[in-house]
Amino acid sequence: MEVRIKCENLQRAGSFKIRGAMNALLQLDDDQRRRGVVAFSSGNHAQGVALAARLLGIPATIVMPESSVAMKVQATESYGAKVVTAGVTSATRDTIAREIAEKNGAAVIPPFDDTRIICGAATAALEIVEEWHEVNTIVTPLGGGGLLSGTALSSTSLKPGIDVYGVEPEAGNDGERSFKSGKIVTIDPPKTIADGARTLAIGQRNFAIIRERVRDVVSVNDEILLETVKWSMYRTKLVIEPTGALGLAALFAGKIRPKGPVAVVISGGNLDFSLLC
Amino acid sequence: MEVRIKCENLQRAGSFKIRGAMNALLQLDDDQRRRGVVAFSSGNHAQGVALAARLLGIPATIVMPESSVAMKVQATESYGAKVVTAGVTSATRDTIAREIAEKNGAAVIPPFDDTRIICGAATAALEIVEEWHEVNTIVTPLGGGGLLSGTALSSTSLKPGIDVYGVEPEAGNDGERSFKSGKIVTIDPPKTIADGARTLAIGQRNFAIIRERVRDVVSVNDEILLETVKWSMYRTKLVIEPTGALGLAALFAGKIRPKGPVAVVISGGNLDFSLLC
Repeated sequence: MEVRIKCENLQRAGSFKIRGAMNALLQLDDDQRRRGVVAFSSGNHAQGVALAARLLGIPATIVMPESSVAMKVQATESYGAKVVTAGVTSATRDTIAREIAEKNGAAVIPPFDDTRIICGAATAALEIVEEWHEVNTIVTPLGGGGLLSGTALSSTSLKPGIDVYGVEPEAGNDGERSFKSGKIVTIDPPKTIADGARTLAIGQRNFAIIRERVRDVVSVNDEILLETVKWSMYRTKLVIEPTGALGLAALFAGKIRPKGPVAVVISGGNLDFSLLC
Repeated sequence: MEVRIKCENLQRAGSFKIRGAMNALLQLDDDQRRRGVVAFSSGNHAQGVALAARLLGIPATIVMPESSVAMKVQATESYGAKVVTAGVTSATRDTIAREIAEKNGAAVIPPFDDTRIICGAATAALEIVEEWHEVNTIVTPLGGGGLLSGTALSSTSLKPGIDVYGVEPEAGNDGERSFKSGKIVTIDPPKTIADGARTLAIGQRNFAIIRERVRDVVSVNDEILLETVKWSMYRTKLVIEPTGALGLAALFAGKIRPKGPVAVVISGGNLDFSLLC
């Protein structure tokens, strides 16, 4: 069976996030662009918004928790964004971001529960289906649901009958439970190396699409995930972050049994190398 | 200034070595192919010969020192080669390989001081010049001289006046000293993370070409080399082994100041991840 990977780890700013960020920022009018944008994220969304804003000449403020990895703060600042961390915990950053937005009249760019973000993320699968007509199954990681809902939206529109799967870390399988129960399940902050999939609940807009267009949601444990990260680096010479390896890990673990040519979306490559030690 | 990289880390068996190995094996007649091949190497040449032999259906024996990294022994065996390590040190492996060859009538495939190996390695630069007419400078790592002499041979033939540079680790700069003095200098086993460039002396055939066609040979220390490996993985999402990063490190360190578009050959990606810890 042929497996191809969609290398969003080679994407600008190191993940698929710039697709949604760029699409959202392109919708702003001149006045909104002048007032700038605000985003809250400790990870790839921060870097995606920061780079998209720089490319469009829009001022950006990113609210990151005080516990953020120094490397990710530096990367976000290196794209020209103003980073706010003082007094910010994961729980309060949403509120702080909205306060900053109200004060400056800046637009908040949400990480996943947003139509512009979903449509931007959808372009990855659009490219897959356009470039590879035989593709029969697409597998993506699942965090808040931006990538999975976007993937399902574009791929099933272009190719009805295609199977779309989402993969979560076992410890943070709120999406799997939501999909199975038909209601959004909220969990406590999960302990998993897949830092991009530590979201506590899928977004509402994302869930509506996922329920309707996704074949199944499965999960894999951190052990096989770490094995997959190492395998990928050793065999493909590509740096893949744990969240990005979820789809491949699900294939290795036999959690997904595709019925034909399968495309696996590697969502990002912003790996903290200390994980390999 | 535009810099492009030639990703031999993405090559079959993880390095440029398969180019020379395949070319050498293709020259063997049917009788020689039946009797098989022998190579001595603890690194990428072992894997290159093993894979080339498998692809051509030729039995291969690889003599590796007992101190070889387990992962590299496994990789070589996984390509179907017979690996001999018992009683083998780096100093004796050459003799042991020749004994095996004499006993079985097998052909010894040397790592670099061989016209077939040089011509095979030369195809990397052939591709560079054919694909990128504007290229003005080519930078490659330097160990035994197979890649550098091959690169100089093909690139200066196709584009006279092109500048070719070789880069060594500072602790193992026999090639730099040979190039400057005009005579092959032999050194003691060097301590450097660039395990592919720990050769004690350049090969005679390689040196004859390098003297005539290479612009300069420079060296970089292990500190900047490790920085470059990490930078490459972080910024390009490509896994590069220390030897493969020599060319980029020389540019970062300002040891080479190209006068135009420059192609840097990344020789391999078989990285021992413990180096990052």
